[in-house]
Amino acid sequence: MTHAGDLLVVGSGSASYFAFSAAHFAPVRVVAVVGEDFPAEHRARFEGRAIDLSGLETGAGRTFRWRGEYAAELGHAHTLETQLNVFSTFHPRLDAHHRDAPYVFLANIDPDLQLEVLSQMRKPKLVLSDTMNYWIARKPDRVLEVLRRVDVALLNEEEARALAGETLLVRAADRLLDQGAKAVIIKKGEHGALYRDRETRYLTPAFPVEALRDPTGAGDSFAGGFLGWLARTGDADGNAVCQALACGTTMASLAIEDFSPRRLVETSQEEIAGRVELLHRMVHFDLKPVF
Amino acid sequence: MTHAGDLLVVGSGSASYFAFSAAHFAPVRVVAVVGEDFPAEHRARFEGRAIDLSGLETGAGRTFRWRGEYAAELGHAHTLETQLNVFSTFHPRLDAHHRDAPYVFLANIDPDLQLEVLSQMRKPKLVLSDTMNYWIARKPDRVLEVLRRVDVALLNEEEARALAGETLLVRAADRLLDQGAKAVIIKKGEHGALYRDRETRYLTPAFPVEALRDPTGAGDSFAGGFLGWLARTGDADGNAVCQALACGTTMASLAIEDFSPRRLVETSQEEIAGRVELLHRMVHFDLKPVF
Repeated sequence: MTHAGDLLVVGSGSASYFAFSAAHFAPVRVVAVVGEDFPAEHRARFEGRAIDLSGLETGAGRTFRWRGEYAAELGHAHTLETQLNVFSTFHPRLDAHHRDAPYVFLANIDPDLQLEVLSQMRKPKLVLSDTMNYWIARKPDRVLEVLRRVDVALLNEEEARALAGETLLVRAADRLLDQGAKAVIIKKGEHGALYRDRETRYLTPAFPVEALRDPTGAGDSFAGGFLGWLARTGDADGNAVCQALACGTTMASLAIEDFSPRRLVETSQEEIAGRVELLHRMVHFDLKPVF
Repeated sequence: MTHAGDLLVVGSGSASYFAFSAAHFAPVRVVAVVGEDFPAEHRARFEGRAIDLSGLETGAGRTFRWRGEYAAELGHAHTLETQLNVFSTFHPRLDAHHRDAPYVFLANIDPDLQLEVLSQMRKPKLVLSDTMNYWIARKPDRVLEVLRRVDVALLNEEEARALAGETLLVRAADRLLDQGAKAVIIKKGEHGALYRDRETRYLTPAFPVEALRDPTGAGDSFAGGFLGWLARTGDADGNAVCQALACGTTMASLAIEDFSPRRLVETSQEEIAGRVELLHRMVHFDLKPVF
């Protein structure tokens, strides 16, 4: 597989969505803890993929669990309960081959752990972080510290509003930059995503999906497509970021078409490329002078 | 002014947003009824523009009034009250120079009136319609009849969901086509808009606005930019539709930056072209093969 560098994901059970998504683009190394209840069928799905599970620990107890409900539009999740379970005592142990990964995804673990991982990394080219309301409510300062230390921070609408204290998303993105973030991506479910750094903004609509079944894992799949594209090409300019957003929304669109990561696992490079091309056709227009 | 054809708008007081928006692209003829309370300062704003007000009637009574509230995100309106006022006895009278307009916008008037106008038009090239929840709740069959008769139907998210009976917007658009619409545009406020016809889909994010003050008139301003572009160029292919969507979201972004149509009136062709170009830059990416 031609690619510019491997990907490392540090997280919980949901890191599997990232891994399945990103592995279509470049090899993935997983550092995560799951509980004794982590289904064997999940483990079996990893076989034969470019996914290194040597960093997957099984802790005593249950897997991290998030329980929520999705509104009628399926895409707006409201957290009902977050059970840290094995997560509460997790300390990611990174081996040498983890520490030298050039592309890093810090999934929605405790921001203190995210910072711990960051300090162990050798010389990553690009670090992407995620978070969740649970941490924003409990450790907003640490979450902001992570935002300052990573290259790109992913948040969903609700998280961005809560952390920035702004309801309008355009302003929320600006406020997060004011607070020190280098670049943020705000995921808006069926409405796509917006990217903001100090110089520019990029916007991508969501790839339109008619067979929406389960939005679980959409965010991690987006992250996998986004970072996967960057790891594959090694580019980091504006065009690469835009392409990466398109890959992100494409992978999210696949994830939500079925329960579990099945679609992500079964999809092909042809299908992914086809959707990116379709999305391109849906947003592209030749810039003719208006006047 | 170089343009392919004039625009006709038939509606109420809110038609002024359409007129101010569209007049930057091509001359506009207004057929509307306002009440005796229509502010003189509004009337004064029309002077010196390419807007023909010979079809503007002043009825005995008050102007049509919509009262609603906008949610925290400003962009989701909930109707509290709709007062038809002078509107309830309005029958659009079209003169010869109205009836031969090639580009027609049927604002959110009674669908029976929209059909009445349609039957009086000579040979329009393209008819765009709008509607509102008030009519969807009272005359859904007539609203659908309008959708079947016009070239493109504009709806906001809430209206599309109500009329189609589908919460997912991608499906709502499909359902409206199943019910006979030729093409629909679903406006999603700060999330942009989606266009759907039998062959294709186009997606545009909203032009990002930081100084959002008042979303009133955003929909009519969008309509003015969309139809204005088509009237200016005379094109109707996919690229033209995409460009028209960009002009629509650009005009809406200007409208909401201030109360009243002031910004729409004061903006320039340079500013409009600049925003369309910026939007293009924010969504455009070169399609490199992913694999």
